[in-house]
Amino acid sequence: MIGPNCFGIYCPESGLTMLPGPDFSRRSGPVAFLSQSGGLSIDFAYLGKWRGIYFSKMISFGNGCDLRETELLEYLCQDDATSVICLYVEGVINGRAFLTVLRKAAAKKPVIVMKGGLSDAGGRAVASHTASMGGSRKIWSAALKQCNVVQVESLQEMADAALAFSMLPLGIYRSLTVVGGGGALGVNATDMAEPLGLSTPPLASALQEKIRRILPQPGSSPVNPIDIANPFVPPDILEQTLLYAGADENIHLQVMIQLLPSYQSLASMLGEKSLRRVVPLEGLAQACSNAIQISGKPVVMILPNYKQEASAIEIEAVIREARQLFLAEGVAVFERVKDALKAIAAVSDYAARRQAIELSCQKNMTAVG
Amino acid sequence: MIGPNCFGIYCPESGLTMLPGPDFSRRSGPVAFLSQSGGLSIDFAYLGKWRGIYFSKMISFGNGCDLRETELLEYLCQDDATSVICLYVEGVINGRAFLTVLRKAAAKKPVIVMKGGLSDAGGRAVASHTASMGGSRKIWSAALKQCNVVQVESLQEMADAALAFSMLPLGIYRSLTVVGGGGALGVNATDMAEPLGLSTPPLASALQEKIRRILPQPGSSPVNPIDIANPFVPPDILEQTLLYAGADENIHLQVMIQLLPSYQSLASMLGEKSLRRVVPLEGLAQACSNAIQISGKPVVMILPNYKQEASAIEIEAVIREARQLFLAEGVAVFERVKDALKAIAAVSDYAARRQAIELSCQKNMTAVG
Repeated sequence: MIGPNCFGIYCPESGLTMLPGPDFSRRSGPVAFLSQSGGLSIDFAYLGKWRGIYFSKMISFGNGCDLRETELLEYLCQDDATSVICLYVEGVINGRAFLTVLRKAAAKKPVIVMKGGLSDAGGRAVASHTASMGGSRKIWSAALKQCNVVQVESLQEMADAALAFSMLPLGIYRSLTVVGGGGALGVNATDMAEPLGLSTPPLASALQEKIRRILPQPGSSPVNPIDIANPFVPPDILEQTLLYAGADENIHLQVMIQLLPSYQSLASMLGEKSLRRVVPLEGLAQACSNAIQISGKPVVMILPNYKQEASAIEIEAVIREARQLFLAEGVAVFERVKDALKAIAAVSDYAARRQAIELSCQKNMTAVG
Repeated sequence: MIGPNCFGIYCPESGLTMLPGPDFSRRSGPVAFLSQSGGLSIDFAYLGKWRGIYFSKMISFGNGCDLRETELLEYLCQDDATSVICLYVEGVINGRAFLTVLRKAAAKKPVIVMKGGLSDAGGRAVASHTASMGGSRKIWSAALKQCNVVQVESLQEMADAALAFSMLPLGIYRSLTVVGGGGALGVNATDMAEPLGLSTPPLASALQEKIRRILPQPGSSPVNPIDIANPFVPPDILEQTLLYAGADENIHLQVMIQLLPSYQSLASMLGEKSLRRVVPLEGLAQACSNAIQISGKPVVMILPNYKQEASAIEIEAVIREARQLFLAEGVAVFERVKDALKAIAAVSDYAARRQAIELSCQKNMTAVG
């Protein structure tokens, strides 16, 4: 039994939704969400739909008088349709059992946890639910870290991490390129990457030289961050840039920033009334897809929209279409550079710790053997 | 002389724009932006337009062979049309002179600084500009903090802070209410507030009782965070809730979360084809405005949009209209709760340090006298 005080189950594969979500996506995917809150379940289902996060199962269990966090987590750990588990939990009934299952689950697949009630006031606000083990911020963070769980502090951050884990092959991505224009954007991305344990090392000089030859001059820089000088560099040049940069063995992943709203100026200069017709969306998506296939290294896309005034709704529509095209080509899309970097760091940290744990287990096995 | 390698000046009051911005806002406002990067100037001008950030002057000074960071900052410090100064700087020519002017400026008006090139790779990327004093992250952070400067790490964060400083009366806002539904949203906001030095204390019990009587039952909670139970609570009830909560002398500012996309379900239940007609936008904006006027305490609005799939463009249009209505009533609007909390903390920290500095100066004056 699930509940009471909950919205129940949403399972697109079986077409079942007890949540009030007639317009939830009907497409299945790898992400499960287990939530003590009904409201967050609904919000996450909607958020996921436009972000390209698809769900295996979503279970809102509310006050959980029978099945709850521990039992349901154990189920999702064994569920073949689920490869990423997201969890919103306020209080748990049996802390020891929960942490045991959590550790087991995180050894098998990434588990992303948002713990509600970490602050004094937050703890008070969840007290009317189940205040057991509603402990302090530091204790929870340490316990989750020990289990190699990805801890997030907002639904937005949970969505970013879930997207990265769904779309990036599990791996350690520490060295990135940042490809975009102008210069300050790359400088800024690089500055934000460092505290997250990510770096943007200079490319091998032979590759820099090749990139220098194809990018517009003056104003571009092939070092890394790669400044492409203007927002209208055609897809074939971008693809070649990604291929050259991806050929550097020190690079694990590429982050591209595309300022699509800039095409509005181009459209007006060309006297073209349809913004959509001047933005080479299909070409851009194909360029990223080809670069991923050939280099074997993921490409992540940032689509900022600085023009969000009420009258700029056409740009918004183009960006939304772009997002779907990129996602269909296996390119994860983020709104803000910082969001993407945090999500990439989450995947890398998880993969690195899991590798370390597995290695230490193997050593112990050998020692025992 | 300004430049070379820059976009020059944008000054809406005089109708002057040397930046390539034919669709920049023509409305003047209190925010100045001084930037070593032309691209960021353009991005910030567009970002500001939809966020309700209006500019006094924007100066992109590029390589700055004549006037640059120090001289221009001194000018903005004396400019009566500017009450908030934003600055993007990569390297400075004369560190000591710059910090002296920075300290003087920040004693007079808030100064928000984004320093590019803090990381190893970022420093390398700015080296082609002016690498003088392109120092390390820690040195810069310490120097900026000593000057009581608000340091931000992205353009988005700069916009959030600039909006808060333009719209909130300068003051120390430590104790907030969070008003919204459902429960997890409030718990989450409260959890994020604490590490920023903000709190959501329980309201006085007599006020809780008054709020309990007017909010929908069951599902609501008047303690703080105030859970309004459902997203359709009418404006007059929300206004009364804000007034009761604002009457608590411990409360400095109120954060309201409105889930406008939820009205789509209401519209479809009512058989109403126009989403706009079921969302009481004017009423909501008026409710906040009245609460601000009567209580004398700022209200800040969060308008998340979890439904951003390509087909949900009508909801986006409603939210954009809502944003303008709230801004016109003096209510700062943010996309994410965390963005708002960081901006409120920035205003509070700045005001608290300035107060402490002024007090210590007065003491010194008295001692000297």
